Amino acid sequence: LLKETETTEPQTGSIRDDITVKEGDSVLLYLAPRKSWLVKAGDADLHTHAGIINLKKIIGMKFGQSVESSLGRNLTLLRPRLPDKIMRIQRLTQIVYPKDMGLISALTGLGNGDIVVECGTGSGALTIFLANAVSPTGRVYTFESRRDFAELAAKNIRKAGLEHIVELNVEDFSRKEKFPFKADVAVVDVGDPWTIVPQMRRALKGSGFLVGICPTFNQAEKLVTTLEGNEFVDIGTYEVILRPIDAREGRTRPSTRMVIAHSAFLTFARKST
Amino acid sequence: LLKETETTEPQTGSIRDDITVKEGDSVLLYLAPRKSWLVKAGDADLHTHAGIINLKKIIGMKFGQSVESSLGRNLTLLRPRLPDKIMRIQRLTQIVYPKDMGLISALTGLGNGDIVVECGTGSGALTIFLANAVSPTGRVYTFESRRDFAELAAKNIRKAGLEHIVELNVEDFSRKEKFPFKADVAVVDVGDPWTIVPQMRRALKGSGFLVGICPTFNQAEKLVTTLEGNEFVDIGTYEVILRPIDAREGRTRPSTRMVIAHSAFLTFARKST
Amino acid sequence: LLKETETTEPQTGSIRDDITVKEGDSVLLYLAPRKSWLVKAGDADLHTHAGIINLKKIIGMKFGQSVESSLGRNLTLLRPRLPDKIMRIQRLTQIVYPKDMGLISALTGLGNGDIVVECGTGSGALTIFLANAVSPTGRVYTFESRRDFAELAAKNIRKAGLEHIVELNVEDFSRKEKFPFKADVAVVDVGDPWTIVPQMRRALKGSGFLVGICPTFNQAEKLVTTLEGNEFVDIGTYEVILRPIDAREGRTRPSTRMVIAHSAFLTFARKST
Amino acid sequence: LLKETETTEPQTGSIRDDITVKEGDSVLLYLAPRKSWLVKAGDADLHTHAGIINLKKIIGMKFGQSVESSLGRNLTLLRPRLPDKIMRIQRLTQIVYPKDMGLISALTGLGNGDIVVECGTGSGALTIFLANAVSPTGRVYTFESRRDFAELAAKNIRKAGLEHIVELNVEDFSRKEKFPFKADVAVVDVGDPWTIVPQMRRALKGSGFLVGICPTFNQAEKLVTTLEGNEFVDIGTYEVILRPIDAREGRTRPSTRMVIAHSAFLTFARKST
Repeated sequence: LLKETETTEPQTGSIRDDITVKEGDSVLLYLAPRKSWLVKAGDADLHTHAGIINLKKIIGMKFGQSVESSLGRNLTLLRPRLPDKIMRIQRLTQIVYPKDMGLISALTGLGNGDIVVECGTGSGALTIFLANAVSPTGRVYTFESRRDFAELAAKNIRKAGLEHIVELNVEDFSRKEKFPFKADVAVVDVGDPWTIVPQMRRALKGSGFLVGICPTFNQAEKLVTTLEGNEFVDIGTYEVILRPIDAREGRTRPSTRMVIAHSAFLTFARKST
Repeated sequence: LLKETETTEPQTGSIRDDITVKEGDSVLLYLAPRKSWLVKAGDADLHTHAGIINLKKIIGMKFGQSVESSLGRNLTLLRPRLPDKIMRIQRLTQIVYPKDMGLISALTGLGNGDIVVECGTGSGALTIFLANAVSPTGRVYTFESRRDFAELAAKNIRKAGLEHIVELNVEDFSRKEKFPFKADVAVVDVGDPWTIVPQMRRALKGSGFLVGICPTFNQAEKLVTTLEGNEFVDIGTYEVILRPIDAREGRTRPSTRMVIAHSAFLTFARKST
Repeated sequence: LLKETETTEPQTGSIRDDITVKEGDSVLLYLAPRKSWLVKAGDADLHTHAGIINLKKIIGMKFGQSVESSLGRNLTLLRPRLPDKIMRIQRLTQIVYPKDMGLISALTGLGNGDIVVECGTGSGALTIFLANAVSPTGRVYTFESRRDFAELAAKNIRKAGLEHIVELNVEDFSRKEKFPFKADVAVVDVGDPWTIVPQMRRALKGSGFLVGICPTFNQAEKLVTTLEGNEFVDIGTYEVILRPIDAREGRTRPSTRMVIAHSAFLTFARKST
Repeated sequence: LLKETETTEPQTGSIRDDITVKEGDSVLLYLAPRKSWLVKAGDADLHTHAGIINLKKIIGMKFGQSVESSLGRNLTLLRPRLPDKIMRIQRLTQIVYPKDMGLISALTGLGNGDIVVECGTGSGALTIFLANAVSPTGRVYTFESRRDFAELAAKNIRKAGLEHIVELNVEDFSRKEKFPFKADVAVVDVGDPWTIVPQMRRALKGSGFLVGICPTFNQAEKLVTTLEGNEFVDIGTYEVILRPIDAREGRTRPSTRMVIAHSAFLTFARKST
């Protein structure tokens, strides 16, 4: 673990190199803040207000390099990472924001091998995040009662390449008597989370974490009081306020606008038995 | 992926069951909010203000069950998860808080297989978080110039069981000419992060993420202006404000106290070439 | 109004001069942030951890000058202003904070001549603030059902020298049928403000402002829905978060601690008829 | 001061009655949140998306009553108060927001009789607020070096009816050697407030308050360090974050949008001599 002044030889050559764009690769073309396009290398020309970009020309370039548009603008070829994909999924529902996903992951300590149960798949944004967090040996069992949401979520999860981690159940979670697993973490993103606390208890291991995502104070309050009455311990509710800062030489300040001033209250609790 | 009303048979029996406390297991004894103790099953009696707890008696119990203290108080046996361990490591330095770790993970999309370089290991709290996030096939190359910090960090990382993921270099990062890896994500937690931007560029893949952790706005400003002058794109700075909520029946409100009102500004950027 | 380069002669000589400390004057002895003492010039010696201060010696000095303690520490003679007095009143109740008083004043446009009705005098802190704001020709009618609170408030209001502006009624506001005034602004600082909305309507002029101070969101919600059902318009609820900033050369940042992370939600509405 | 169950007879009959709209009166026609119009009773018809409103018809009505538009919509006749006027002044500059005005007033304890000096009149919004706060016997000496700003401010101050309280100097404050007054409170709203600290000292009484309004961290930092070097004491910097709350039955939460996420840092200090 502890090295002196020499670092070890890398295990594989691949970790030494920049990555080459191959045909069919997803590429995030970055022009400016909030001006970027997620494309596929090799597809037809992309037309933007900054000119036309030839998506065949980018094959063979390295991620990090720039391509010039027909109007002489440079766009950087960024390698899409998880949040680039999540924030661009097709949606039928409000999705959970990265600021909230981050706290869920950090406070529950999500990691490889964890079994997660999710109630309320919605468009699948959080499902994708959870599946990535428990990869490669964990599993996410997610439940969605509306078929249209479930079908969209399935499409989004497949696009993210995480279908082998996820089992998506088109089913009314509130009627569920038995679960063929015991989860380390249960995440609830439905309008009335307090109604399914008994199901959540059954789906959770002893000591497992329950996380509730509630847009309103009223929901958070009902969830917390129900958890208190159902032998959950270590209960805490938080709001994550993400404050963008405009950092510029000699005139740095918090941004004057905040696009997401509030999303949800996050409640955390652990199952005692 | 998409299941109808029947869930699959679990892959292994182990995911169906509650977990039994075995001798030598870490156990978090939970009494009340901010009143919990991280112990080892089988160790000598634990003496607390709530009475004495016999740590031999808990062997064979299930996580989630409660043990009674000599004063008749019940303590829940919680299975420690990553944040329980991280927040209790031995420290010589200020550590990064879960609220900030979460945003780093969520905005960079950290996951299994990622190569991470960290400058400023400190006590190793963030190193442990990053190592868990990229497990089992990723790797964290961390650099710390102070031997005392590095030795403590090594001890903490080993205790977290993540030493196979981490390479800890006792070395002055700012003098580093070559790196035997190219990282997907670089994390800088030093006092003058702008001075090592060239080294960070060399350690990063094209399109890789740089994350800077800066307590003051002056540091964030200098880091951002340096990144702008060094071909980084998609630069953004954020502060995570974690607001605790007191959810109680009929009288829910934000907590009147906030223990951590500010920790750091987090800057994110991606390397163009 | 619009002057060119010459300013007018002051109306009176008194506005040209520093102010001399006279016997019996209130003086705020300032040593350091949160280390100051409100004293009376001419009183017996003040004993502090920073030494003894002779309060006779300060008579005849100018406000702004410093006095030396027996231990050689300098304390500045500050002339107490309203918040210095308000924050030091004797209390039997939680008081409204300056951050919230300020918003009440700014959003209702309180000024000289306004008639204010206040329900829930408590210790009188807000009463003093309101009385100062409507001085010298306005009036504050305040109601407190608990005699012990009212007596303390009367003492505090007299000490602030505002007794000629205030009429303090020891009376159950909720049973009040008629008011011998019509107020421009009504301020409610009781636990169940929604129960006295009809009384508030009777005490208010058409178009007058109602302001409710509610620690919990449950109270704010009930107040707002009751106001909506009672012909109030232009209803808005706000929380004032006062963020202290540590401004120091080269290392400026939000303070790591926030003493008052939440006090109350403030609801504003105007009476339609 | 302390009344038992009988309230005093009102001093004048006028404080018992609702107020009648007279020809020429300013009236705020309120339709819905952020849908209101400041008009003069007796003026020509007002055309809005909610129909035409006859402004002659409202003469003789009471404030608080509603007038019907040609499309059958009801608009409440609100009596404009100070913030209604301030937020609608004609502007050539960014104006100070009520949330910040409120803190300035509350922390300095502004009141009748205070002498205020303001550097940077701008469009006069803050000047109007300050003049109202020190009415009827106080005075605001305001300085603006740009004639166009000063002329607009003069117009705005006259419209607010506060010209007898204000002396507006078209003059470069930074070259000012002598002041014919000593102020209780000095307010600085210019881009480089630290450059005029010596002038501010000369314009202030001993123990007087200086308030600096700085949009950026950098300005606040320079102002604070300059004040520390110029014998100011009790120095503090704050940011007021005004959080709008959507209070609705059963689904109350912080608003998802925040129009003003940041305006300025406010620095407070007192002059020692």
